[in-house]
Amino acid sequence: LANELIEPTVLNNILRRGVSEIIVEEEFVRLLQSGKPLRLKMGFDPSRPDIHLGHAVGLRKLRQFQELGHKVILIVGDWTAQIGDPSGQSVTRPMLTAEEVKANAESYLRQFFKVVDKERTQTVWQSEWFGNFTLANVFDLTRRFTVAQFLARDDFAKRFSAQRPIAITELLYPLLQAYDSVKIESDVEFGGSDQRFNLLVGRDLQGMMGQEQQQCFIMPLLVGTDGVQKMSKSLDNYIGVDEPANEMYGKVMSIPDTLMMDYFELVTDVPGKELEEMRRSMDAQSVNPMELKKRLAREIVAQFHGGAAIRQSEERFEREVQRGNVAEEDIKLIPAPTGTGTGLELDIFPVLVKEGLVESSNEAKRLLAQGAIKVDGNTLEKRTATLDFGNVIQVGRRRFVKIVNADAPQS
Amino acid sequence: LANELIEPTVLNNILRRGVSEIIVEEEFVRLLQSGKPLRLKMGFDPSRPDIHLGHAVGLRKLRQFQELGHKVILIVGDWTAQIGDPSGQSVTRPMLTAEEVKANAESYLRQFFKVVDKERTQTVWQSEWFGNFTLANVFDLTRRFTVAQFLARDDFAKRFSAQRPIAITELLYPLLQAYDSVKIESDVEFGGSDQRFNLLVGRDLQGMMGQEQQQCFIMPLLVGTDGVQKMSKSLDNYIGVDEPANEMYGKVMSIPDTLMMDYFELVTDVPGKELEEMRRSMDAQSVNPMELKKRLAREIVAQFHGGAAIRQSEERFEREVQRGNVAEEDIKLIPAPTGTGTGLELDIFPVLVKEGLVESSNEAKRLLAQGAIKVDGNTLEKRTATLDFGNVIQVGRRRFVKIVNADAPQS
Repeated sequence: LANELIEPTVLNNILRRGVSEIIVEEEFVRLLQSGKPLRLKMGFDPSRPDIHLGHAVGLRKLRQFQELGHKVILIVGDWTAQIGDPSGQSVTRPMLTAEEVKANAESYLRQFFKVVDKERTQTVWQSEWFGNFTLANVFDLTRRFTVAQFLARDDFAKRFSAQRPIAITELLYPLLQAYDSVKIESDVEFGGSDQRFNLLVGRDLQGMMGQEQQQCFIMPLLVGTDGVQKMSKSLDNYIGVDEPANEMYGKVMSIPDTLMMDYFELVTDVPGKELEEMRRSMDAQSVNPMELKKRLAREIVAQFHGGAAIRQSEERFEREVQRGNVAEEDIKLIPAPTGTGTGLELDIFPVLVKEGLVESSNEAKRLLAQGAIKVDGNTLEKRTATLDFGNVIQVGRRRFVKIVNADAPQS
Repeated sequence: LANELIEPTVLNNILRRGVSEIIVEEEFVRLLQSGKPLRLKMGFDPSRPDIHLGHAVGLRKLRQFQELGHKVILIVGDWTAQIGDPSGQSVTRPMLTAEEVKANAESYLRQFFKVVDKERTQTVWQSEWFGNFTLANVFDLTRRFTVAQFLARDDFAKRFSAQRPIAITELLYPLLQAYDSVKIESDVEFGGSDQRFNLLVGRDLQGMMGQEQQQCFIMPLLVGTDGVQKMSKSLDNYIGVDEPANEMYGKVMSIPDTLMMDYFELVTDVPGKELEEMRRSMDAQSVNPMELKKRLAREIVAQFHGGAAIRQSEERFEREVQRGNVAEEDIKLIPAPTGTGTGLELDIFPVLVKEGLVESSNEAKRLLAQGAIKVDGNTLEKRTATLDFGNVIQVGRRRFVKIVNADAPQS
């Protein structure tokens, strides 16, 4: 049956690419193959209306399901927003005014529909059910779970043992989110791995209330541009889907090389086969990582701004960042020093002397101490650096060279 | 000022007798002396409508305050009853029907007004405020306290560390009880020492919500007839204020001697000075403890059934329990053996032989083995026993002697 309804590569893409866990996978596949139009649950916090690439991982997954005919139920979390998701640290937040919620929701939806198909989306508000919630309803939720079950959740456990305060309200957050699943009769809920607990509470509660239990689709967290932490607006390591093309291109170019393949996998449609080839080329050092990263930046810019925005943003990056606003014709092309593209640290002083950028190693030393030597706009701290094909070395304000591979055609 | 308004012995009685802690005592005395009519908070759980002597400790305190002109606000806890007080172990309980609550409330009030002055009592229902409680109201309570603060409460801490389940609902109980204080603008809340935490949450919440903080009047827990555990219906060690006079008299007579003075202090009006004398007589063994206990039983019966009920219940006790239904004239009075009333174990076989109750020690031994020797209705297990003045020794079915003090007048 499985293969009759959904084309195997599509199924494989949905189940494997950008997915860390499906609970329960076999139930889920059966459901998907049943032909029933599924109700895909997605919630959003109207106090945080900005969508970044980290969120896009999940939204892209929704879009894939929509293309199979399923329907997104988007929940405006105007009640849970008052608590704040305790999956991060939080305090109870003041209630937003109706106008604020409305403005934020509009802003969110405009961004949301850059990824998700508006025609196959229904928007509902938590107020529909929480607006008339009684104390008896609260009892009916809270009596079903124990304090210990909730404190076992990773982030609660950490805060509790570190004696950081957890407001009693915060225990209500997963319960309300779970009740959303009941009210919209969710078939599948989507969330990052930090949402795993909340998704499972929804699944449990549906079972307790006599509903079919939702499937939980858990996706990896996208690491931010700092290469270390989960992408998040508050950590300022994010790439917003609403940012101008130039900004988006530049931010993608700033991620560490090590993140590149994750980004390709999670936020582009570049086919898996091509990604494998890229990995092989990277391992064999037969490709300039910067060229791959430019490809990534182009894919992402095209996704949110259209293909027409690519050329302008790439040129701006090359001009302003790579060449420090120097015209291409003022940059001397030099053959790559031995060791370029190997990832090894090279002594760049001999290169500078050989290419006439400095008079002597002594001058180079002095300029280095003044912070006047840069590679691709980044000030060098020491005389060694890894060099890649395409790197622009800048000495002082006006002297530039660009490393080219004499054996390969330049893009 | 203090001594001008309230007579010192009355004040002393209110502040000291049957009180384990007042929070905050000096604020409280100032309030009491201000002349302001105080609002005395008392709540009751309509799923447990029966009042026993343990409850009476607090109700008697209320009555003392009423006699100074203050007013009791009695809260029918029709919402907290759905949770069950987690100060014991509990699960969330099914909601009572309106009829059940009404019937229970009527039964409770009938018992309540055996102690508390109806004229100075106002009854309110939690439904007045919790019936329309919104989720926003719930947030507004739960955000003010942390999970750790609540889990620090004695009984929660024990259950949590023993990994016994605590439903999230149970954390709401102290919050709802606290909110009651806010709604009725409580000046003083009363509770046993197991309610200390809940009373303080009420005090805190009032402060947070801009009210004067209630004073907390904490009273000792009355030990039940078993002499070991807190009096409680579920442990079947209770004396209900609604029990027939005979039953009440008999139950009081069954408490261990060691509890007697606590009962005198907590549930009778026998003046402190007299209690001191009783203690001295007990210490000097110049009084028969059974006579004191009969006094206690009379005081308690008179309190709940009127003085007219005393004679009949005391006679019934003496006839049925002490004499095993034998007529007084069939009981031989014997002079007290040496050691009577000392609390020391005496060999009773020589007494039985001397008084002609048995032919020989051998017969006594045989009857003992058959369980045919009793003191005040209790079967002896061994040949030694402590004897008190007034004890009735029974051998077989028809032979009785009563120990009298030849030096003291018999009552």
